[in-house]
Amino acid sequence: MNPASSLDEMRSRIEESFLRQRFMQHIGAELLRVDPGEVEIGITRNDALLQQHGFLHAGVVSAILDSACGYAALSVMDAESGVLSVEFKTNLLAPAAGERFVATGTVLKAGRTLTVCRGEAFALDGGARRLIAAMQATMMSVRGRDGVRD
Amino acid sequence: MNPASSLDEMRSRIEESFLRQRFMQHIGAELLRVDPGEVEIGITRNDALLQQHGFLHAGVVSAILDSACGYAALSVMDAESGVLSVEFKTNLLAPAAGERFVATGTVLKAGRTLTVCRGEAFALDGGARRLIAAMQATMMSVRGRDGVRD
Amino acid sequence: MNPASSLDEMRSRIEESFLRQRFMQHIGAELLRVDPGEVEIGITRNDALLQQHGFLHAGVVSAILDSACGYAALSVMDAESGVLSVEFKTNLLAPAAGERFVATGTVLKAGRTLTVCRGEAFALDGGARRLIAAMQATMMSVRGRDGVRD
Amino acid sequence: MNPASSLDEMRSRIEESFLRQRFMQHIGAELLRVDPGEVEIGITRNDALLQQHGFLHAGVVSAILDSACGYAALSVMDAESGVLSVEFKTNLLAPAAGERFVATGTVLKAGRTLTVCRGEAFALDGGARRLIAAMQATMMSVRGRDGVRD
Repeated sequence: MNPASSLDEMRSRIEESFLRQRFMQHIGAELLRVDPGEVEIGITRNDALLQQHGFLHAGVVSAILDSACGYAALSVMDAESGVLSVEFKTNLLAPAAGERFVATGTVLKAGRTLTVCRGEAFALDGGARRLIAAMQATMMSVRGRDGVRD
Repeated sequence: MNPASSLDEMRSRIEESFLRQRFMQHIGAELLRVDPGEVEIGITRNDALLQQHGFLHAGVVSAILDSACGYAALSVMDAESGVLSVEFKTNLLAPAAGERFVATGTVLKAGRTLTVCRGEAFALDGGARRLIAAMQATMMSVRGRDGVRD
Repeated sequence: MNPASSLDEMRSRIEESFLRQRFMQHIGAELLRVDPGEVEIGITRNDALLQQHGFLHAGVVSAILDSACGYAALSVMDAESGVLSVEFKTNLLAPAAGERFVATGTVLKAGRTLTVCRGEAFALDGGARRLIAAMQATMMSVRGRDGVRD
Repeated sequence: MNPASSLDEMRSRIEESFLRQRFMQHIGAELLRVDPGEVEIGITRNDALLQQHGFLHAGVVSAILDSACGYAALSVMDAESGVLSVEFKTNLLAPAAGERFVATGTVLKAGRTLTVCRGEAFALDGGARRLIAAMQATMMSVRGRDGVRD
């Protein structure tokens, strides 16, 4: 297989897995970009996603960061692996106010079993990107476990 | 004011704040219990909340843990404080499979500005409670900032 | 093998591994208690272990918490496993002032590859125990890797 | 005051505070670089700093990362602030094997009370830098508290 088709297959695999994430659909998240070791997910502000002060709920911010990190990890795993989140830590740096948000996941260290990623979430206002959250996450490659397939 | 009415006021305040959390309504989360320093939130399995393998999405697990920890912190803050999440770390201990889930937030250390909480999420199956996630979180008391009021 | 001798062997194995931790000796840490899934390490205040304000350095607090969590995990692993720290998060809850400190590591969830632990560190003053730090950690069982043996 | 002298004063203040960190001296850590928002600390391998498999102890790795992050935060705080670690999370990415190690702390978001930093630790072998650990940390500015002065 040449690298180009391998890249296409990796992207298709992640796009299909993303579409099976019912929760990502439920909150209106979109897969914006899939590169080896880096994935971007976007979401538009929606009243249903807010917490009590009118900011995007920290659970939504974590959800798109976690998915971006998980797919960044999956993008560098072999084709037989499914991905599970082991743990993540989210620092909320500024109130998640804005019309549009993007979360980027980047692989920091890929291993056979565990892959560590960093995530950053931004609020977009016009042309400005404001960093609102940072994640550090551990993802696990799972092989041969029923029901965990990506 | 006697302690009983103060406890009632604290509960009313948290219940009203919870109802303003549009995202908690959107995912069908319910505030089950509010005690000083301890809050419990429940949620029922729903296809819209799943990730690609059919488990509750880690972002949903984090969302109810974060809200349980945040309100546990708010329950021991003075009446002028609003609460914001500074950071949280979630360890996902077992696949979030089940029909019903509860998240408990407990204050570990209350401070004037920062309050540290622990959270635990359980899957309920019949009478059994299975621990599926653990959180360690820092919450911040905010006073006099427009728009941050609970 | 009967359970009692198995328990003795587990304890001997952890005691021997602890003695090989040169850094634990260097800071004067002592292994106080080893039970299945729970380990306690103690340390006495010493000028060499302080940070700039005269409190025990957060790195020392983390070191004894990490070792307590690592050995708690090892205590429930099979005899062929060595243990490595994957990640840990430490919340510093109060200044580490005192004459004596203990760190307790407890297994929250034991798995074949990953074991999640919680740690708590206390300052002892007379008969009082004051909680000064909390850890949430992931430990990994390593089998058949040269040089990683406990 | 002109910016150059202000930069010099910030550096002097951090160098003096570092020298008061008895534990940094005890493990042989050196302050290598102080720039606004970025600090680097180095350490040479020493048998006394190892864990049971012969790698640098995770507590030592955390200690130099925590100090690098703390001083990076202090470098952007006003001159009346002392710095305390609120929490940090360390992912250990590779065994800490090598002759020399450096930890870099970088400010991600500076706030009036809380400053969030990222840290990276590297093992140096000849000219190569190998990433061995990553930290995400919250630091707190403390004003007017006795004994907390930098």
